[in-house]
Amino acid sequence: MQTDFLDEVRDELREFVEARDWAQFQSPKNLAMALMVEAGELAEHFQWMTEAQSRQLEPEKEKEVAHEIADVFVYLVRIADQLGIDLKHSVREKIALNAQKYPVELVRGSAKKYTEY
Amino acid sequence: MQTDFLDEVRDELREFVEARDWAQFQSPKNLAMALMVEAGELAEHFQWMTEAQSRQLEPEKEKEVAHEIADVFVYLVRIADQLGIDLKHSVREKIALNAQKYPVELVRGSAKKYTEY
Amino acid sequence: MQTDFLDEVRDELREFVEARDWAQFQSPKNLAMALMVEAGELAEHFQWMTEAQSRQLEPEKEKEVAHEIADVFVYLVRIADQLGIDLKHSVREKIALNAQKYPVELVRGSAKKYTEY
Amino acid sequence: MQTDFLDEVRDELREFVEARDWAQFQSPKNLAMALMVEAGELAEHFQWMTEAQSRQLEPEKEKEVAHEIADVFVYLVRIADQLGIDLKHSVREKIALNAQKYPVELVRGSAKKYTEY
Repeated sequence: MQTDFLDEVRDELREFVEARDWAQFQSPKNLAMALMVEAGELAEHFQWMTEAQSRQLEPEKEKEVAHEIADVFVYLVRIADQLGIDLKHSVREKIALNAQKYPVELVRGSAKKYTEY
Repeated sequence: MQTDFLDEVRDELREFVEARDWAQFQSPKNLAMALMVEAGELAEHFQWMTEAQSRQLEPEKEKEVAHEIADVFVYLVRIADQLGIDLKHSVREKIALNAQKYPVELVRGSAKKYTEY
Repeated sequence: MQTDFLDEVRDELREFVEARDWAQFQSPKNLAMALMVEAGELAEHFQWMTEAQSRQLEPEKEKEVAHEIADVFVYLVRIADQLGIDLKHSVREKIALNAQKYPVELVRGSAKKYTEY
Repeated sequence: MQTDFLDEVRDELREFVEARDWAQFQSPKNLAMALMVEAGELAEHFQWMTEAQSRQLEPEKEKEVAHEIADVFVYLVRIADQLGIDLKHSVREKIALNAQKYPVELVRGSAKKYTEY
């Protein structure tokens, strides 16, 4: 039986944190703060770029960005785990809600509608 | 063969965006910005809570938080996809780097060491 | 006639940006992004601290925090100026709105009410 | 003798918080978190705009943005005050440092240099 990547990472991170006795610092409040800080580090790479430039990163920059994305991912998995939230279930649920909220025929290709939604 | 959750979600979101012709708005720059905004909405739930309170959410609050976490997740999958980044590979790589950076024997149970690293 | 600090800083920053021909990069969109990134750098200092620790910073840490606060301040003055917004007027207006929104007799000393508002 | 706007606002906000007995919730940690959340609300207005669009806001949108800017300003004044930081001194100091860090002759008009600094 194949194990799912997300479950694997959740378990690995749980062990990582337990081995270092860091769960005491990883309250959901602190994790939410750390996650936002990492999201800021990700955004920093793009802040003075044009949108076009952001679509064509140099390999070295792309590598750095990939690691920032991974940092956010790690905290996201951790905060869900600390709260006992089923991340996969929540993502499925939210995507279904978004599909209802933004019906194709209503919002297709319109920046105006996109921003107003 | 079982498909992995993360691959499934990436493919679904790609279709979601294509059906709405939204890829034009989803430059990595804009996605990084939107991701940070969603991270802010997640953090907002916790900003005046104590750490202890953040560990014991009411069911209704937990539901809201779960959806904010899902929002961040969706943008994270999208930005990786738009940049052609292999999210699973990057996460594996970053966890391995973190294990090197924070050796158990050095950082165990110490807030001081935790914060200085 | 004494000049106001905020007006002085606005004028100095305007000259700073013009001398470097940076106004082209300082669109309100980019400034909003940079401001959020700096807010993240400010928050990073506090993310693993307890609230009590955050009230008693070491002098060196306080100095670093003071400079992060200044960074946010600079972008705040810049974004208002680029948008032609009268920052002083807006702040006065918002404080008056907050006073209406949170009447003393209703919200006094209650975390519960504070968070629900 | 004219009082400075920034000093006036700091004193008003101090009274505002004291009247509501909110200083207990306004630890520097919580204020840094709240400030970042407000910075996210400011950025949200711009996330799907082009840079050009962000330079030409509709009056109603500009009003909303002005209030978000004021929200960030209020928390910035509060966190400095709670930490006993002289905001005006720190801003002066940081602008002087920036002038040294980005000499006109070196960085003028170059996005490349701008982003690498």
